[in-house]
Amino acid sequence: MALVVQKYGGSSLESADRIKRVAERIVETRKAGNDVVVVCSAMGDTTDELLDLAKQVNPAPPERELDMLLTAGERISNALVAMAVESLGVEAQSFTGSQAGMITTSAHQNARIVDVTPGRIQEALAEGQVALVAGFQGVSQDTKDITTLGRGGSDTTAVAVAAAMNADVCEIYTDVDGVYTADPRIVPDAKHLEHITYEEMLEMAATGAKVLHLRAVEYARRYGVPLHVRSSYSPKPGTTVSGSVEDLSVEQAMITGVSHDRSEAKVTVRGVPDNPGVAGRIFRVVADAEIDIDMVLQNVSGTASGKTDITFTVARSNGAVAVAELEKISAEVGFEEVVYDDQVGKVSLVGAGMRSHPGVTATFCEALFNAGVNIDIINTSEIRISVLIQDTQLDTAVRALHEAFELGGDEEAVVYAGSGR
Amino acid sequence: MALVVQKYGGSSLESADRIKRVAERIVETRKAGNDVVVVCSAMGDTTDELLDLAKQVNPAPPERELDMLLTAGERISNALVAMAVESLGVEAQSFTGSQAGMITTSAHQNARIVDVTPGRIQEALAEGQVALVAGFQGVSQDTKDITTLGRGGSDTTAVAVAAAMNADVCEIYTDVDGVYTADPRIVPDAKHLEHITYEEMLEMAATGAKVLHLRAVEYARRYGVPLHVRSSYSPKPGTTVSGSVEDLSVEQAMITGVSHDRSEAKVTVRGVPDNPGVAGRIFRVVADAEIDIDMVLQNVSGTASGKTDITFTVARSNGAVAVAELEKISAEVGFEEVVYDDQVGKVSLVGAGMRSHPGVTATFCEALFNAGVNIDIINTSEIRISVLIQDTQLDTAVRALHEAFELGGDEEAVVYAGSGR
Repeated sequence: MALVVQKYGGSSLESADRIKRVAERIVETRKAGNDVVVVCSAMGDTTDELLDLAKQVNPAPPERELDMLLTAGERISNALVAMAVESLGVEAQSFTGSQAGMITTSAHQNARIVDVTPGRIQEALAEGQVALVAGFQGVSQDTKDITTLGRGGSDTTAVAVAAAMNADVCEIYTDVDGVYTADPRIVPDAKHLEHITYEEMLEMAATGAKVLHLRAVEYARRYGVPLHVRSSYSPKPGTTVSGSVEDLSVEQAMITGVSHDRSEAKVTVRGVPDNPGVAGRIFRVVADAEIDIDMVLQNVSGTASGKTDITFTVARSNGAVAVAELEKISAEVGFEEVVYDDQVGKVSLVGAGMRSHPGVTATFCEALFNAGVNIDIINTSEIRISVLIQDTQLDTAVRALHEAFELGGDEEAVVYAGSGR
Repeated sequence: MALVVQKYGGSSLESADRIKRVAERIVETRKAGNDVVVVCSAMGDTTDELLDLAKQVNPAPPERELDMLLTAGERISNALVAMAVESLGVEAQSFTGSQAGMITTSAHQNARIVDVTPGRIQEALAEGQVALVAGFQGVSQDTKDITTLGRGGSDTTAVAVAAAMNADVCEIYTDVDGVYTADPRIVPDAKHLEHITYEEMLEMAATGAKVLHLRAVEYARRYGVPLHVRSSYSPKPGTTVSGSVEDLSVEQAMITGVSHDRSEAKVTVRGVPDNPGVAGRIFRVVADAEIDIDMVLQNVSGTASGKTDITFTVARSNGAVAVAELEKISAEVGFEEVVYDDQVGKVSLVGAGMRSHPGVTATFCEALFNAGVNIDIINTSEIRISVLIQDTQLDTAVRALHEAFELGGDEEAVVYAGSGR
């Protein structure tokens, strides 16, 4: 008998009707002979609505109270799903994060899972029940307060439960039927992927693919939990996320897909005096504002003018703060100006295949050149190439790369063997 | 420094704006130098909406899950009020029923408070904070499950907390500014009562006055908690509920008010064989269906026919079930028929004064007679006279009694001294 963990997101649970459909799927899985644990997010837009209500009564809501408030959403959805399962003749019980043994740090709205002690879940399963576990939350050992886990919290809850209980699979139900070689809305002949390795999925998620949260994929990778991303609206198999690029043979390693990201902005600090420590000062000031920096471009120093430009990207939502923090050290550092450009986009090619096949970077750049797309910044890892370009050229770039690497249609993706990488 | 417990109901909390008004009142009470504990119901119609959602996914929702679901409502409102109080510069913390130490029986949707161990509330107060406590809920010692308290649950929570913590007063905030000598919508010159004893309030609440729940008043009476029923929309003082009729002198004891109730129905079992045990059988069958019987009229037995009629009242919502249960024993008991009449109403006169002043019953009946109101059943206690009449005559009856006992306008209520009761 297998242990299956299923996670359903807000849109899969947004009405009584959707909840009943979800309950049918849960019961089907249970009646096939599996033990079933289900993690539910809050219904529909509940979390955002509660957050909005909170800000109406206090523009800076105290964090302990905010977590007391937000966790009500998951309490509601999990109780309703348990009721719906029971109405189909299968016993079910819902548990809060605390009752399910999700132990976290005490950082409200951004807690990390520290341990999972699923005793009550195991008791419920032993009684033949389906166990519902509230996603996105846990309890802090230090303060005994309820905490919420931040972005990707429900996916992470599901993976953490699956890891702690040695589940055979963690099924993530969403509104798309898995991972594609590119966004099908941009590339009509994008292919559905049956399988993708953890590292490739991490790169896809980190560079714009929204189907799974980075954090949940990393947790799954670390504990070896097989993920199955699929649609809650259809019975079609989705995409399995499992295995490491290390375990792929040269023949198996492919170019997997193209991701894109419209959420970044470019910050250029112009005319930076070319002194030691100056770059560090600039990056430290941004980091102290709790802003992550993604791509970096620093012009070669030693020019006649003794000045250089430093360019980097941040999330667009952090752009204004980053610029403001830099302006504050303008006199101290002595740079000329800070330029902000939010009309940028990032496109990335991901695939284990680029480790062992030369020429991928060349094909990549040629494809963009031929499509009239200019590259601003380039950034690579072992299995990924990313470039920052003008946001208006993103769709063109995605299609050009997808075509150049033959990712579409009936053909398997073939890596172009050619000149050295 | 006084300890004040305040309770706010759903309509006082139905929007972010109302919540901010409530927070202002809480802060005002705190800044006056009091320790403040606040009990909040769920916002607006949240409880009914959650119940409705539950029934959409399962027409017979399992009770443990229903309590998991319903308690989310109070979690939300108390966290929001705590946030609103904090935004006004006063520290506040919200607690679930469990965190606040409300220990209950394990009867879901109808739990009784067994004990209150308010340790965390006291700690919060000691830190100078306002403590928010979720109403309508507690935790069962036996099952460790969350329970809800049934009708009047939030009022009862507030009184229970006030009793356990020896509060100086328990303020119940509602949408009317206290108790009146009659419903002001029926009797325009109904007078606002400054004070009423526990027993008189119990009688008023039991016979139709909706301003306070019977259960909360009884709890307050038993533990001597002074109640103050007032409006959350205005600063006017409300009605204080305290003291016993036993402690009133003959001069102090008055006729206090007139209540009315449109929620009952009359059931008549006709042609009942006049045998011993038959009345008991009829009442037992109704009781076994968990239906309370209010007024009873049994005709004198020993008539020539050897048959009699038994008439009683029940809540209209239970009428159909009561009739159905009686039909089932028709053959066994041998009565002729069951007649159901839901076009009845009950009007009651309440007042400590009737204990010591003769003639009240006479004045009562004369007033109704003069107003053309026919009495169907009459039922009394030491401080109350109730009659069942046609529902179309209710308003007339209320006004007639209010007038006859001079309860309106500027005059104090005067008991009519006259012939013996």
